[in-house]
Amino acid sequence: MTNDPRPTITLALLGFGTVGQSVVRILAIGDVAGVVLTHIFNRQVARKRADWVPSTVQWTESIDDIVNSDADIVIEVVGGVNPTAEWVRRALEAGKSVVTANKQLIAHQGSDLLALAQSKGVELRFEASVAGGIPVLRALQEGLSGDRLVEVRGILNGTCAYILSRMQKHGASFADALREAQQAGYAEADPTEDVDGADAAAKLAIISAVGLRRPVKVRDIATRSIRPIETVDFEYAKELGCTIRQIARASIDDGGDRVFAAVRPALVQLASAFGQIEGSQNIVSVRGVHGGETTFSGSGAGGGPTAVAVVSDVLSIRRTLVGAPGLATPMARQIYPVSSDFVAPHYVRFIVNDKPGILAQVTSAYSKFGINIDGVLQLPRFRKDRLPFVTTLEECAESMLDKALAEVARSDYHVQPPLALPIFA
Amino acid sequence: MTNDPRPTITLALLGFGTVGQSVVRILAIGDVAGVVLTHIFNRQVARKRADWVPSTVQWTESIDDIVNSDADIVIEVVGGVNPTAEWVRRALEAGKSVVTANKQLIAHQGSDLLALAQSKGVELRFEASVAGGIPVLRALQEGLSGDRLVEVRGILNGTCAYILSRMQKHGASFADALREAQQAGYAEADPTEDVDGADAAAKLAIISAVGLRRPVKVRDIATRSIRPIETVDFEYAKELGCTIRQIARASIDDGGDRVFAAVRPALVQLASAFGQIEGSQNIVSVRGVHGGETTFSGSGAGGGPTAVAVVSDVLSIRRTLVGAPGLATPMARQIYPVSSDFVAPHYVRFIVNDKPGILAQVTSAYSKFGINIDGVLQLPRFRKDRLPFVTTLEECAESMLDKALAEVARSDYHVQPPLALPIFA
Repeated sequence: MTNDPRPTITLALLGFGTVGQSVVRILAIGDVAGVVLTHIFNRQVARKRADWVPSTVQWTESIDDIVNSDADIVIEVVGGVNPTAEWVRRALEAGKSVVTANKQLIAHQGSDLLALAQSKGVELRFEASVAGGIPVLRALQEGLSGDRLVEVRGILNGTCAYILSRMQKHGASFADALREAQQAGYAEADPTEDVDGADAAAKLAIISAVGLRRPVKVRDIATRSIRPIETVDFEYAKELGCTIRQIARASIDDGGDRVFAAVRPALVQLASAFGQIEGSQNIVSVRGVHGGETTFSGSGAGGGPTAVAVVSDVLSIRRTLVGAPGLATPMARQIYPVSSDFVAPHYVRFIVNDKPGILAQVTSAYSKFGINIDGVLQLPRFRKDRLPFVTTLEECAESMLDKALAEVARSDYHVQPPLALPIFA
Repeated sequence: MTNDPRPTITLALLGFGTVGQSVVRILAIGDVAGVVLTHIFNRQVARKRADWVPSTVQWTESIDDIVNSDADIVIEVVGGVNPTAEWVRRALEAGKSVVTANKQLIAHQGSDLLALAQSKGVELRFEASVAGGIPVLRALQEGLSGDRLVEVRGILNGTCAYILSRMQKHGASFADALREAQQAGYAEADPTEDVDGADAAAKLAIISAVGLRRPVKVRDIATRSIRPIETVDFEYAKELGCTIRQIARASIDDGGDRVFAAVRPALVQLASAFGQIEGSQNIVSVRGVHGGETTFSGSGAGGGPTAVAVVSDVLSIRRTLVGAPGLATPMARQIYPVSSDFVAPHYVRFIVNDKPGILAQVTSAYSKFGINIDGVLQLPRFRKDRLPFVTTLEECAESMLDKALAEVARSDYHVQPPLALPIFA
């Protein structure tokens, strides 16, 4: 977070649903300096009001209260195009910057709204509209601005990833997996927008505009449903080393004038990053002429991750508003002390001149330092006078393991010093 | 790239090696508007001068020429701390912003240099110093600024990734894999800085400062060499579903005052994104309190990717200098036409009421539209009156495949319509 001493800016929030509440929680936890929430707008505000929200916040059911407030930034997390588009337009016209998580709004009206923002000298940000907490739009727009990006592929819809990974892993039919997704809160009662591709198409349109710099109409993006996928397709895909996911893909041809874009189920390598995406995880991979392929993955949905994207946009606008337009100075001059004493499961490999009692001695040294053995591995066919074997250990502090191994190392049967490696899940 | 109509800013380049040449190439290709290269500094400039560089560029062996020039931004891609630190300091003092790819410089002197830049009202950027073309610093600093990051893990050294993946895949010894890495240009004659961990430690120190907001001294980060890893360790690791990579890791405890940081070889899951990193690929994964885990991967080294990071930093500073401090307006108002006619290998699944001649009819339809069959799959044990089989096809345009399938679909043996899915590598 920032600890910039410059002025505080004020925020108004439209929508106190899952994402809105997460935004308020992040702000309220108090490690976001320099911004203060002054208004929350929601329908039926009496029912929504929460006592953990700071009492200084003004609750309202009237959009006029927001437009006429002195809030610097309006955060829109209501969703939908109507009447949200009108609210965002009024906020921009009133000279407020807007941060939104609304993919449909940006996919359909982004160009117009950005032009309006520019004409008013304010900003419109929408990182949360694509891939939730993964800062992919910023990465495309800023971090890779020195490249010429020519292709984007993504898994952008959590409902499809959930359904397809249930079908893959449990042999569930599409109908059963959809029902499970609905029960788990991953799918709407009417799943059309997700499973037939419109949700991913809206996100792909935004990525195409920002990353490829090729704005396209959402309705021009051809979509195919995942509904015709059968259990047997996962069996055949597995024979090919693959699984099936809904893939959103856009590319430009050599001249750069023609955009290819589509959303459809596709086979992806089981062992690839795409093949391992499940549930609400999203992944986006881009290819540039100079930099090759770069991949981003993380939480594509959920209140917390989406709110992180919203608050990050707010802080970015704040830096412009308070006249610190570059990056926040990232390095405080205070230097922190460092420990390397991580706690982790461990792999310890010994190479010994075998004789009776070695394992007993090793395990007793572990025991002395409170270290639990998870397993012992000894593959066949090695020479007895140069015998490698491995112990795997439950979580232990590296410092304790070092002590146990120092004790063991005194013995004369080691052909080489024991090798300890942490195991990362 | 940007098509901002605002003023052009001027650049001076220190170092015309691999990265420097790639920077000039990206600038010279002409799709980077708004910046112009005016100076190139290098030792023995007569030997370095290249005729493909625009003749307007002034070549020099004198750092004074750079400091006294009117360049807005100095790009430092020389490397090393001496005398580079002094050059960067002089450029900042002369009121120039600096973009550098120099990890040692930033890891050791980043705090001081950033303070100097701030006092002069200029910027110091160093995205290219960590993970080459992957915009991970910007993502941590801006895109995830709304989160509180508590852990970072990365594979940040390409030499180690190359050596360890050779050992894993070819059963090579460390010594042989190192020799191959040296022959392939992945390792220096003296590989100490890479294989013993100092290179990754410098990068980890930068990530800790930027991402965790905890600056640490590079020499406080404990490192362990990959030299003691033996071929047998990969055999045992495989038994555990793992492989071995050099991992740089930092985290902060609950209070946030204590930093854990270390660089060492570790076991990682074979099927994980970390387990699949090879050669010059880098990966960084961060965990935040609100947003969970986010992962970035791509080209961690090489002229092109590193130059992309450098040019992206240049363009970002340019936006500040020309008074467009927010993000570049990403959506031109021109809307592009869209085609969904991707060319890809395909999977086509049929479910038929079996009878003789079906495969002949299918293959002849493919042939008619110029589509080559890669393979035919028919798993046993299915009912003959509801028989699924699959053809895999070499690369073909979706539109051609649709035509072939429309022809096949007329027949009466289909229990369900054929299902065509692209196959992504």
